[in-house]
Amino acid sequence: MAFDSVETPFGKAERVLGGSATYFSTAASYFADVGIVAVVGEDFPDTYIDMLNKRGVDTRGLKKVPGGKTFSWKGRYDYDLNQARTIETQLNVFSDFKPQIPEDYRDAPFIFLANIDPELQMEVLAQVRNPKLVACDTMNYWIEGKPDALKKLLKNVELLTINESEAREFAKEPGLVKAARKILECGPKTLIVKRGEYGALMFNGKSIFSAPAYPLENIFDPTGAGDSFAGGLIGYLANTNDLSDANIRRAIIFGSVMASFNVEAFSLERLSKLSFDDIKSRYREFKQLTHFTDI
Amino acid sequence: MAFDSVETPFGKAERVLGGSATYFSTAASYFADVGIVAVVGEDFPDTYIDMLNKRGVDTRGLKKVPGGKTFSWKGRYDYDLNQARTIETQLNVFSDFKPQIPEDYRDAPFIFLANIDPELQMEVLAQVRNPKLVACDTMNYWIEGKPDALKKLLKNVELLTINESEAREFAKEPGLVKAARKILECGPKTLIVKRGEYGALMFNGKSIFSAPAYPLENIFDPTGAGDSFAGGLIGYLANTNDLSDANIRRAIIFGSVMASFNVEAFSLERLSKLSFDDIKSRYREFKQLTHFTDI
Repeated sequence: MAFDSVETPFGKAERVLGGSATYFSTAASYFADVGIVAVVGEDFPDTYIDMLNKRGVDTRGLKKVPGGKTFSWKGRYDYDLNQARTIETQLNVFSDFKPQIPEDYRDAPFIFLANIDPELQMEVLAQVRNPKLVACDTMNYWIEGKPDALKKLLKNVELLTINESEAREFAKEPGLVKAARKILECGPKTLIVKRGEYGALMFNGKSIFSAPAYPLENIFDPTGAGDSFAGGLIGYLANTNDLSDANIRRAIIFGSVMASFNVEAFSLERLSKLSFDDIKSRYREFKQLTHFTDI
Repeated sequence: MAFDSVETPFGKAERVLGGSATYFSTAASYFADVGIVAVVGEDFPDTYIDMLNKRGVDTRGLKKVPGGKTFSWKGRYDYDLNQARTIETQLNVFSDFKPQIPEDYRDAPFIFLANIDPELQMEVLAQVRNPKLVACDTMNYWIEGKPDALKKLLKNVELLTINESEAREFAKEPGLVKAARKILECGPKTLIVKRGEYGALMFNGKSIFSAPAYPLENIFDPTGAGDSFAGGLIGYLANTNDLSDANIRRAIIFGSVMASFNVEAFSLERLSKLSFDDIKSRYREFKQLTHFTDI
């Protein structure tokens, strides 16, 4: 969980609520019970925690460090909203974060390991019992800095979400179809390549699914889009408890729906205030957006 | 029509057959009768013309300039296959090309104005009678160099195909949805934004259609992809004589199918040797690629 300061061509926000756990859990909360494991400092307002609790998010795994300061990130997006430029990162309490999984979480059937050090992601896995699905995210920083730990982690992961450029980098292969095959050989049964405003591609070794992004009139702030996507995706899978190809495709569309809402406003402003009708309605717009008839 | 010398990360081709008219007409020939208007030099081999004729392409509008040299282009693609880098362009006979439309072509119901000087595109339009559909392409060179002629042309065009970056540039608007609205205000009823390996988006003021690109194992050479796309698109529209939203969506998929075949080999090697079963089969793969169920 984080304080984000974000500047985009459409406005700016100072020290607003952010962080993978926040975006993921808020998006997932529309579909399933969700509990977070995260760390904040003493400067973290209770109102933010209240907001998550009101959305049904279990925050017993959130550790507040007395005297500590919350992780903060400052970044900018130019017109190419696919690429964040980091201006400043302060790790603060995050620098010695050791995820402790509350006893009540350890039998959770669906686990999402947000983007942190793959060694810590492994430590989380060591604390959970027989999950039905383990999904994870990562980034270029770990691909470059801890490739071996990441490869070890991937052996224990069923579903990986990763950005397109990172997929190519991890596989050392410019062709995306080939890169996907190499990544699937490392462990995951399902790979979802996130392409920002171009949508997502799912590979599982048998079929490929191409999901569009929703063409938005205003993209205010892409921060958290990937985690909102993952929240909708894993939330829907947990809700339906069905890992078939057809259901993963629906889950990807729900993930895309949540990401599309998220980028329409700064922070959680839009994502935290949806109705399930909003979500279903946008799902149907995705259907219209991609519809063409057989020949 | 052109001689192309192309280098990609996957190989190189020297002075092979290229050019918008070649790619467009070959792709369109699988769907409809097509005639080309183009110019070549005396150095242009008859075998290339034979190949087009064998595909049923009417080449009576092809002018061969005695003593002239054919337009030639030399370019390179790096791993980012969306972006060609031009090494050399020799206009040759193209530099004083004045398209003359053969009398037998003048009642053609479907007209595609490939990317040339918008003033010449206007001259072509002045020579045709009551077409059912006029489609055109253009590029940044004309957007920057002849914006007024281009705007005048667009008033007389029903369908525009344009690259994504060019759409933004033409509209002076980074947001694609807003850029599309501005372009539609200039005349076209339908705008198709080409996004290379990310597919295409169609805007018509009422609905938006997102078409994927086919995820290819090997993209050998993107040269001609846009014109092959247009050939499949307009060819299918001419074949069906139906400009409904649903049919334009199918046509966009056929265009995407033809582009996907084209980039699998240099020059016309793949595009000229297809069966209609190949085309239908890939259309169905596009359907599978994008399929997800309603909720």
